[in-house]
Amino acid sequence: MIRTVLLAVVAAISLGISVASFGQAYPSNSGLQHVQRTLPERLGYPADTKLLIVHADDLGMAHSINAATIKAFERGLVNSGSIMVPCPWLPEIAGYARSHPDADLGLHLTLTSEWTFYRWGPVSSKDQVSSLLDHNGYLYLTESEAASHANPKEAEAEIRAQIERARAFGIKPTHLDSHMGTLYQNKALFETLLRVARDNRLPVRVSKEWFASTNYLSSIFNPNDIAIDRIVTMGSGVQAGGWSKFYADALKGLQPGVTEMVIHIAYDDDEMRAATIDHPDWGAAWRQRDLEFFTSDSFRRLLQENHIKLVTWRDIGKAQYPER
Amino acid sequence: MIRTVLLAVVAAISLGISVASFGQAYPSNSGLQHVQRTLPERLGYPADTKLLIVHADDLGMAHSINAATIKAFERGLVNSGSIMVPCPWLPEIAGYARSHPDADLGLHLTLTSEWTFYRWGPVSSKDQVSSLLDHNGYLYLTESEAASHANPKEAEAEIRAQIERARAFGIKPTHLDSHMGTLYQNKALFETLLRVARDNRLPVRVSKEWFASTNYLSSIFNPNDIAIDRIVTMGSGVQAGGWSKFYADALKGLQPGVTEMVIHIAYDDDEMRAATIDHPDWGAAWRQRDLEFFTSDSFRRLLQENHIKLVTWRDIGKAQYPER
Repeated sequence: MIRTVLLAVVAAISLGISVASFGQAYPSNSGLQHVQRTLPERLGYPADTKLLIVHADDLGMAHSINAATIKAFERGLVNSGSIMVPCPWLPEIAGYARSHPDADLGLHLTLTSEWTFYRWGPVSSKDQVSSLLDHNGYLYLTESEAASHANPKEAEAEIRAQIERARAFGIKPTHLDSHMGTLYQNKALFETLLRVARDNRLPVRVSKEWFASTNYLSSIFNPNDIAIDRIVTMGSGVQAGGWSKFYADALKGLQPGVTEMVIHIAYDDDEMRAATIDHPDWGAAWRQRDLEFFTSDSFRRLLQENHIKLVTWRDIGKAQYPER
Repeated sequence: MIRTVLLAVVAAISLGISVASFGQAYPSNSGLQHVQRTLPERLGYPADTKLLIVHADDLGMAHSINAATIKAFERGLVNSGSIMVPCPWLPEIAGYARSHPDADLGLHLTLTSEWTFYRWGPVSSKDQVSSLLDHNGYLYLTESEAASHANPKEAEAEIRAQIERARAFGIKPTHLDSHMGTLYQNKALFETLLRVARDNRLPVRVSKEWFASTNYLSSIFNPNDIAIDRIVTMGSGVQAGGWSKFYADALKGLQPGVTEMVIHIAYDDDEMRAATIDHPDWGAAWRQRDLEFFTSDSFRRLLQENHIKLVTWRDIGKAQYPER
């Protein structure tokens, strides 16, 4: 999940308000204004192409998530996802990654353990990352607790350990992002994320819109880093009956550039209901609605009717690191 | 699960062979021959009473196990269970333990992580228990790997950490046992288990029958330690159609003394099928059969017709530590 950083954006989208955007240029103080080509052009498309990544978060967290997301991958319209390495079902999704080497799978770097009945700890040795742990030895429940307690050096050690374990399981990540947005919560953590991403020559989930909501992003970004244009994700204000309309409106109004739809797929089954108990938002029924919409014929039609093409983080990685 | 140590016993039971038993007296070299009263007498029953603990293992491992076992507890005939502290669903079963303080819940001390797609690590900091971990940083897949690699001091640190975490979650364990029997695999590990149990003034799962299958048990046991008379558990040789007959035969032939039926309850659902994939024994359908038998009217009738009374590990703990 990505939550806090996106709330303003989500709220704006939910309300139908046009979200502030830097369009095709970075702010002048970013030192990036010499990058003239738009992201669609860097990806080999005309500048006004509407490109979309349909990205499922939280793989590895639960069997229900793995099974439902794999079903959506096989349906063909959900074309990217990211994996939570500290979670117990990592081996299951790692098996999928090994048998589907072309799948666009990144790592959903995880510094939180947010559920009431179902918890996990870090990949690192606990005494080396004590600033990341609650009194029970699990990762913190919320992104704000995690970010306020995290020693950035320990956060860096932990996310490097997550990448190392993923590679040991045969996962070849195409991108990095941050579960619940913890690594976007402050400048030190975001610098850590970017440093680790650059060292691994991987693109990282950053939206140009976020430059408007922080006072540090533009000073950290450099000319080679790629920010996609915008992210659309379901917020907590949408009722079950409004699900399709939320996504349909977003697709009908999609602007040129690269948009990522960040979605959360699972079955509304016993495991997922228990894991997400007392969390209606991002809960089991909530995720089943994402499964249904993103495997539907109406989603396929909306893509066709609105001339939206799918791209992946692998494509973006090749643009960012063409020599790789 | 308890596996290896019990295989000979299980095989014998499966074949209808009478298992060697020390009856009411310990071997003469144990120094325990002065304990004259039988265990039923120490529990306040006539010496020839048939007493039974119906014990569900593996609580905390999966939601499916927690939910199905709680259902069996509420049915009233499964009257004891033990919890795997390192597993991700610990908080769920801990919530049940806090709201049911009279429940007979012990700790299923865990030094293995045996499934293919679903794994966990230790409670301790990894660099302090490296002898317990496989190359991925999880607990070993099998009890034999775990026992052969384990430094007993690290095993002791880990099981003490598991007890500490359980207490931090408000669990007040009534007994200790060992998942997959890892702590019964060699003398050093069994001494560790007994030392930790004595320090915590808790009874531990030991059967008098096991004295026949090891060359060290009798030299470690002391007069205050309690061994129950025997353990009955489903082995791998029984087909689905023979489930009820296996248990019915065991109940009809039950001898006086304290017997523990070690059972494994879960639903045959998606979570459990995926967790136990490629393990038909101790798998999802296997566990659903235990749920069905031990919540059945026929089990209730077998208890009545064979004059079998239920006792708990709490009762045994009070006999072993009356001053507690």
